[in-house]
Amino acid sequence: MPELAYVNGTWSTIEAACVSIDDRGFQFGDGVYEVIRSYDGRLWALDRHLRRLEHSMRAIALTGAPTAEVKPRIIELFERGQMREGVVYLQVTRGVAPRRHAYNAGGQPTVVMTVRAQHAVDIQLYASGVPAITVPEIRWSRRDIKSTNLLGNILAKQRAVESGAYEAIFVEADGRVTEGSSTNVFIVRKGCLLTREKGPHILAGITRDLIVETALEQGISVEERPFTVEEMRAADELFLTGTGTEVLGVVTLDQQRIQMGRVGDLTRALLDAFHERVRQARDD
Amino acid sequence: MPELAYVNGTWSTIEAACVSIDDRGFQFGDGVYEVIRSYDGRLWALDRHLRRLEHSMRAIALTGAPTAEVKPRIIELFERGQMREGVVYLQVTRGVAPRRHAYNAGGQPTVVMTVRAQHAVDIQLYASGVPAITVPEIRWSRRDIKSTNLLGNILAKQRAVESGAYEAIFVEADGRVTEGSSTNVFIVRKGCLLTREKGPHILAGITRDLIVETALEQGISVEERPFTVEEMRAADELFLTGTGTEVLGVVTLDQQRIQMGRVGDLTRALLDAFHERVRQARDD
Repeated sequence: MPELAYVNGTWSTIEAACVSIDDRGFQFGDGVYEVIRSYDGRLWALDRHLRRLEHSMRAIALTGAPTAEVKPRIIELFERGQMREGVVYLQVTRGVAPRRHAYNAGGQPTVVMTVRAQHAVDIQLYASGVPAITVPEIRWSRRDIKSTNLLGNILAKQRAVESGAYEAIFVEADGRVTEGSSTNVFIVRKGCLLTREKGPHILAGITRDLIVETALEQGISVEERPFTVEEMRAADELFLTGTGTEVLGVVTLDQQRIQMGRVGDLTRALLDAFHERVRQARDD
Repeated sequence: MPELAYVNGTWSTIEAACVSIDDRGFQFGDGVYEVIRSYDGRLWALDRHLRRLEHSMRAIALTGAPTAEVKPRIIELFERGQMREGVVYLQVTRGVAPRRHAYNAGGQPTVVMTVRAQHAVDIQLYASGVPAITVPEIRWSRRDIKSTNLLGNILAKQRAVESGAYEAIFVEADGRVTEGSSTNVFIVRKGCLLTREKGPHILAGITRDLIVETALEQGISVEERPFTVEEMRAADELFLTGTGTEVLGVVTLDQQRIQMGRVGDLTRALLDAFHERVRQARDD
């Protein structure tokens, strides 16, 4: 299972791969990214990731790396890596230029990719559930752009990890929940799912969308709207979704139990349904 | 006048200098920076920049690159570069690690520096003044941290440049002005200076502070408090400060003249006083 890297047409080990110190991705966070995983030797939801990448690139006017050209490179990388359970990381930046804030439209972007073995979430956590904490939402207001401006996310995740939690959930000043530092957030109330609507407030998570679609297929009602931290604390169930996280129950929030402090039935059912969907390879 | 680069102890041309694709500065914007210029062969306000760097590093818990060790490297770089009018760019990141949001405290940071010739602002602009535009403040709420999460700044500056303006000035949803995309903002009302107070809303600009101090020394009153975009539009004078910008009058805002559309007397006097201070090398 070779882990390897690709940087603008050059293949190497990950350790040997580097970018210029004048890369705008390094100096400004002027770039976007995707993390794509595989199940059983097949890239999962690749086209969904590429559509989101296109959205991110368009939102920051990053041109010169059309997804039609990037896609075969991703597939080649994944095939070279020979991973059954792998993770492709893809980052596109506005490329190398002497440092100044404004950019030259039409420059040559930097395309970086790696393939690595997937370090899956400890399977026991899906049964036991995880602790989460809430943190103030201090990030910029274009969370729909999957950019590498991730300092707010990092600092939140670090706070979670240092307090023994799996995730930090952002709450706006008016009490409305947005998302986790690397996940989307769902609550269950009286058998219905509730999650923040798509828009600038949150990242349009691929697993989030798949769970919404799966729930609707099963006749479970889904509301996409803002909900408050109080609604979250009083929820029947609370869970996180993400490419690496899949569907993961939260059993304590700020050290207070969610209901009985156990992973809820609907959370469990949706994880099973998600895995079934993976088995059927229904990822579009 | 050799332009050169330093990356964690290694000296090279800027073109040859690179960082790992797994550098957290590249993947997360997990780093901070400073831009220091020289006048007449002498680094200007170096200790102020280092104090701000310390603040930024402390704010994101970035350890392992104490300014006491960084300072002699900056001086060595500057001496090797042999620039009379030069710019030192310094970036410190949380270093190289396999990608995940949370970090390992105590890792080895990446220290990158370059020295280049200063591309000064066209001197005519100090006489003519410049256009500026206003843009919504959409950045994160820790603007006091000089991090490389600069996408909001870039997109704003790009909008300014594309509309023929020098700078984009951020205005919060409630109408209060924060700062420019790479400058601080001052207005003059009835002979008094008004600028946003320091705190999380703005970067504590070095030139901003020097202008406040210089004004106070000259008996000019200075108020540091939030002011609105309406106060800015109605100002007697409007100017920007920054390391590269120095003290630059704004004569139109969103294509509307500020007063008579000329650089104001106090703006001009403060630029002269700033240059006098540079000549006297009073930078602490």
